[in-house]
Amino acid sequence: MPAGPDLEGAGAPLRVAIDAVMPEIDDGRYRAKRTTGEALEVTAHIFADGHDLIAADLLFRPSGHEDWQSVRMTELGNDEWAGLFVPKQLGVYEYTVEAWVDRFASWRADLEKRVEAGRDVDSELREGAHLVQQAADRANGDAHVALRTSAIWLADEGLPQDRRVAVATEPDLLELMDRHRDRSRVSRYRHVLELWVDRERARFGAWYEMFPRSQTADPARGASLREAAAGLPRVAAMGFDVLYLPPVHPIGHTGRKGPNNQLQGGRGDPGSPWAIGSEEGGHTAVHPELGTIEDFEWFIGQARELGLEVALDLAYQCSPDHPWVREHPQWFRHRPDGTIKYAENPPKQYQDIYPLDFETEDWRALWEELRRVACFWIDHGVRIFRVDNPHTKPFAFWEWLIAIVHAEYPDVIFLAEAFTRPKRLQGLAKLGFTQSYGYFTWRNTKYELTEYLTQLTTQPVSDYLRSNLFANTPDILHEYLQQGGRPAFLVRVALAATLGPSYGIYSGFELAEHVPAHEGSEEYLDSEKYQLRPRDWEAPGHITNAITRLNEARRAYPALQHNHRLWFLPIENDQVLAFVKADPAGGAHVLVVVNLDVRAPQGGWVGLPLAELGFAHDEPFTAHELLSGQRFAWQGEWAFVHLDPREQPAQVFAFERGVPEQAGGIGIRP
Amino acid sequence: MPAGPDLEGAGAPLRVAIDAVMPEIDDGRYRAKRTTGEALEVTAHIFADGHDLIAADLLFRPSGHEDWQSVRMTELGNDEWAGLFVPKQLGVYEYTVEAWVDRFASWRADLEKRVEAGRDVDSELREGAHLVQQAADRANGDAHVALRTSAIWLADEGLPQDRRVAVATEPDLLELMDRHRDRSRVSRYRHVLELWVDRERARFGAWYEMFPRSQTADPARGASLREAAAGLPRVAAMGFDVLYLPPVHPIGHTGRKGPNNQLQGGRGDPGSPWAIGSEEGGHTAVHPELGTIEDFEWFIGQARELGLEVALDLAYQCSPDHPWVREHPQWFRHRPDGTIKYAENPPKQYQDIYPLDFETEDWRALWEELRRVACFWIDHGVRIFRVDNPHTKPFAFWEWLIAIVHAEYPDVIFLAEAFTRPKRLQGLAKLGFTQSYGYFTWRNTKYELTEYLTQLTTQPVSDYLRSNLFANTPDILHEYLQQGGRPAFLVRVALAATLGPSYGIYSGFELAEHVPAHEGSEEYLDSEKYQLRPRDWEAPGHITNAITRLNEARRAYPALQHNHRLWFLPIENDQVLAFVKADPAGGAHVLVVVNLDVRAPQGGWVGLPLAELGFAHDEPFTAHELLSGQRFAWQGEWAFVHLDPREQPAQVFAFERGVPEQAGGIGIRP
Repeated sequence: MPAGPDLEGAGAPLRVAIDAVMPEIDDGRYRAKRTTGEALEVTAHIFADGHDLIAADLLFRPSGHEDWQSVRMTELGNDEWAGLFVPKQLGVYEYTVEAWVDRFASWRADLEKRVEAGRDVDSELREGAHLVQQAADRANGDAHVALRTSAIWLADEGLPQDRRVAVATEPDLLELMDRHRDRSRVSRYRHVLELWVDRERARFGAWYEMFPRSQTADPARGASLREAAAGLPRVAAMGFDVLYLPPVHPIGHTGRKGPNNQLQGGRGDPGSPWAIGSEEGGHTAVHPELGTIEDFEWFIGQARELGLEVALDLAYQCSPDHPWVREHPQWFRHRPDGTIKYAENPPKQYQDIYPLDFETEDWRALWEELRRVACFWIDHGVRIFRVDNPHTKPFAFWEWLIAIVHAEYPDVIFLAEAFTRPKRLQGLAKLGFTQSYGYFTWRNTKYELTEYLTQLTTQPVSDYLRSNLFANTPDILHEYLQQGGRPAFLVRVALAATLGPSYGIYSGFELAEHVPAHEGSEEYLDSEKYQLRPRDWEAPGHITNAITRLNEARRAYPALQHNHRLWFLPIENDQVLAFVKADPAGGAHVLVVVNLDVRAPQGGWVGLPLAELGFAHDEPFTAHELLSGQRFAWQGEWAFVHLDPREQPAQVFAFERGVPEQAGGIGIRP
Repeated sequence: MPAGPDLEGAGAPLRVAIDAVMPEIDDGRYRAKRTTGEALEVTAHIFADGHDLIAADLLFRPSGHEDWQSVRMTELGNDEWAGLFVPKQLGVYEYTVEAWVDRFASWRADLEKRVEAGRDVDSELREGAHLVQQAADRANGDAHVALRTSAIWLADEGLPQDRRVAVATEPDLLELMDRHRDRSRVSRYRHVLELWVDRERARFGAWYEMFPRSQTADPARGASLREAAAGLPRVAAMGFDVLYLPPVHPIGHTGRKGPNNQLQGGRGDPGSPWAIGSEEGGHTAVHPELGTIEDFEWFIGQARELGLEVALDLAYQCSPDHPWVREHPQWFRHRPDGTIKYAENPPKQYQDIYPLDFETEDWRALWEELRRVACFWIDHGVRIFRVDNPHTKPFAFWEWLIAIVHAEYPDVIFLAEAFTRPKRLQGLAKLGFTQSYGYFTWRNTKYELTEYLTQLTTQPVSDYLRSNLFANTPDILHEYLQQGGRPAFLVRVALAATLGPSYGIYSGFELAEHVPAHEGSEEYLDSEKYQLRPRDWEAPGHITNAITRLNEARRAYPALQHNHRLWFLPIENDQVLAFVKADPAGGAHVLVVVNLDVRAPQGGWVGLPLAELGFAHDEPFTAHELLSGQRFAWQGEWAFVHLDPREQPAQVFAFERGVPEQAGGIGIRP
């Protein structure tokens, strides 16, 4: 926009300023994220000097296309404008904003004010005729003729002025003038921004983490993948979408941990799947006890038939027995005596793990090999990776790896296990991770949940970070679950499944397994990381039904499949969280109320956003509770809820017009 | 940071990410602003993978210098870092951030943890010796010798380990290692940002707007500049720093407005100074009734001797009698019949004003002429311009004009009269205006003032926009002043003078002139814009003393001269506003309490930030009220205030250690 100090040779400066375009992640250094079919709303501050009317277009195109598509933006007030487009294909889209002074619309608006004030507008009509004639000169064919004719009529003093004014205010003329506007006077936003478009599963999915070796009835011998497949129908029946497997590779012997993380594991101990590599192979091998690569492919095929997509762990670290230790010792850190350094976080020591040295002189070969690992599994049918501890490897590595994989396979999903500080977690999301673990397990009070989810669902974070709300993991059994009994599990899974379009649980959650390794620990007693854990899935107190209902509701209501529309509702009880999720495409809203107090019943009056729900103040309507199937008659802005943790601490409501046939009285706040 | 898909030829990637650098206005498109001697604090998010310690430098230099100066940044927690520098010269500074993994500090921290855990650290000490030897190889002279010696000691198995550890943890070694670190592994922030450095008056000043022609005793004849100079000592004695004059140019005859904006002014009416230009000259002429250009220079010299700097109006518009209308008719808009269009905002018409057409084909010549106007007045001693209605001229014009003027005269101050929508007001500040009028006159309640001043004093707005809090202008007499009597004037000037390092009043404010043109109007009755207004400065009820005390306090306390440290204090009374201003350089705080209710006394307990004020909870101290000179003994976190609008609706406190000799009892909240 700025003309140089020397005006000679400078083009006539443009009058419209475009600023604060959103989404824009770090001035376009990183990409916003959406999925195919999910609209991207772009907002901007757009303004010009003076009083003229302006107009703006949102421009967009799949990367590599030359021609822009465009959609007219609308003013929201206060010089804020918005427009949206729906990406239809995977990969990169580009977008930017154009705006211009709309001289014809400005002229027309002024004309109408003058006419209203009873002025003679002959001079103005002749000015308008000039504008229209200029547009005619830019047009061809029918448009040229139509514009030329309008210009003649506007300038014709022989016609009554009201006839000429009628010509000026024809909607057809406005549309023609817009189409043939002077495109040399258009301001373009200074950045072309990029959007990364994933497939739907990147945004919406229920995850289930399972150790295949534990799918056995015999605690002395782990299941093979072919045996573990017997467990798939149960997971599918609960309505999960993704089955996440810890590493399936050979496990090292050196320093192998025994039950409960004992330093010296016994002969028969299976070892931690994250101590990857032995003489039987490394990151591209399948553990012989699990089977062969063909068994692995068969397993993911079985899962697929049940509607389950398999996600694999990508844990770039080695056991001391990993083939790379012999073949590429330069990829590890060495002591002055030449031995390789195991992992340490002083004073803690992890003798069974050799971290890779990403700063090795031979880093190019190392990076290429790690890429080969990812591509190996992609070639064998994996399209989702859960990435172990990405924050302990260089950000540049991940940015390179994800970009290079996505260039060929834009459908691959990377979930970052980034349980780290906020800036690093967000940094990993920005550089390309599809999804991120987060702090959900540690957000348990109404205040914490409101703060945290507000951040996750609002810009700028919502533009680039998709949190996968895992309610537990093999490493994280929160105190709330340890002490809250079955109600705590019901509360946490209801929160995860409704607050997060992506959420997950780890095996045993449905059985309310809650015993920690020791007091103050978030580790499980008899952790499955170090031993087999056969389970009785029908054990009393399981919450399989609640989980199944939640997953059914998630599939039925698009409001629960999106991250951008969440409102917390007023309720005068610090133990009750109430919120509405909305479908950005305008579908049905879902209301969720949760009693966070696992010890006592809690309730209160929830303030409903009636207008958004589409009901009048005096209109009775039906609140359909999706977990129990009950229907209630409600009316007005306030609805009473009462939640008993021993029965049903969480309720999920959809709404229907009219009153149910069988229902209690209508609750109206006194 | 990202390596390309092809790693061959790529340098080893850097590990530290630098993000969210502040101030950064629109990704560096615009400059932050400071004044000479005013520190710029730069913050950033800085983080790396893994557990290594990192370090960061803030780099800065006056633009055009090749060498960077640097200052070490400190971590504030949560990966947020800060550093500051103090610009010493006018013009452009550049700044950016560098950060790196501090391998030696990381090694030393791990060593200490291992030693604490009682481990043998021989291997670690030999690793450290290697790091130190590498630094020695980068060093010369004494540093080389010192590092080499340390490396030998660290590696010497013959020495006791505690001696070797003592060598490792020497502060001198840490400092030497830092000085000779590996600079090839440093991440640099991706932008070099710019700071614009003004002189102090750009930040801090009390302005007084005066029509020189009204400085007359004869209502039939306006004062000349030589006569008006008699009014300067009075303004100087009140403690003002800047005397702002409306346009001093010849005034047009065509369409001249009479008293109270009457359409047909009489022969003897002086006309509006903003209807610029007549046969006697245009924007570079002085109105003959005011005198000559020499008289103007003499006038600003007289003012300067009294400590008053004269600011001139820059109003780029013309009366129909302006010489440009004849000489450059192409600089104006024309009707189809060839006549020039006067200003309109349909249905309103302004027949005495011809706006300039910035979109004329001849825009280059027009812009150059407007630059010539500004430079003419600069050549005649003006260094402050109050710019009339900048939002009705193209943004690109202002960006060009201010840049070209500042390149030669970096001490010139431009105040934007941008009473327009927020985005446009902010846009003008971003592109280079030194100061801006704003919405202060329309912010009168506690809520409004708190919201508005919080925005003005916090980032990002505080980085680029300096609001000049005018309490009234010839166009704006707010209802609060119209109806609130003398107390309202005391309230508003106290707020303006203490909330704004720059503030202003327009003549007559000190007399509490409050009669509007008509009900619902913000214009003055008998507005000075259209007629002479001789005044009796000693009229009963004047508030000259209060203004003088306020300006004295402003000069005495740097806290009132800065915009970046403002805290609103708790007080359970919606009619009382209480706030503290702090001196960024660590000088004395100032507390202000204002009763916004002009009809009744109000009071309450103010929550004091005792720790920031530097007093212990049990320590009595003196609150010195600067407007009345009274001293009070206070103690503890809560202080009682009581403000009677008929006496003194605003109090301004500085604090002194110890208890005053004469004071009432110590107020402690029950």
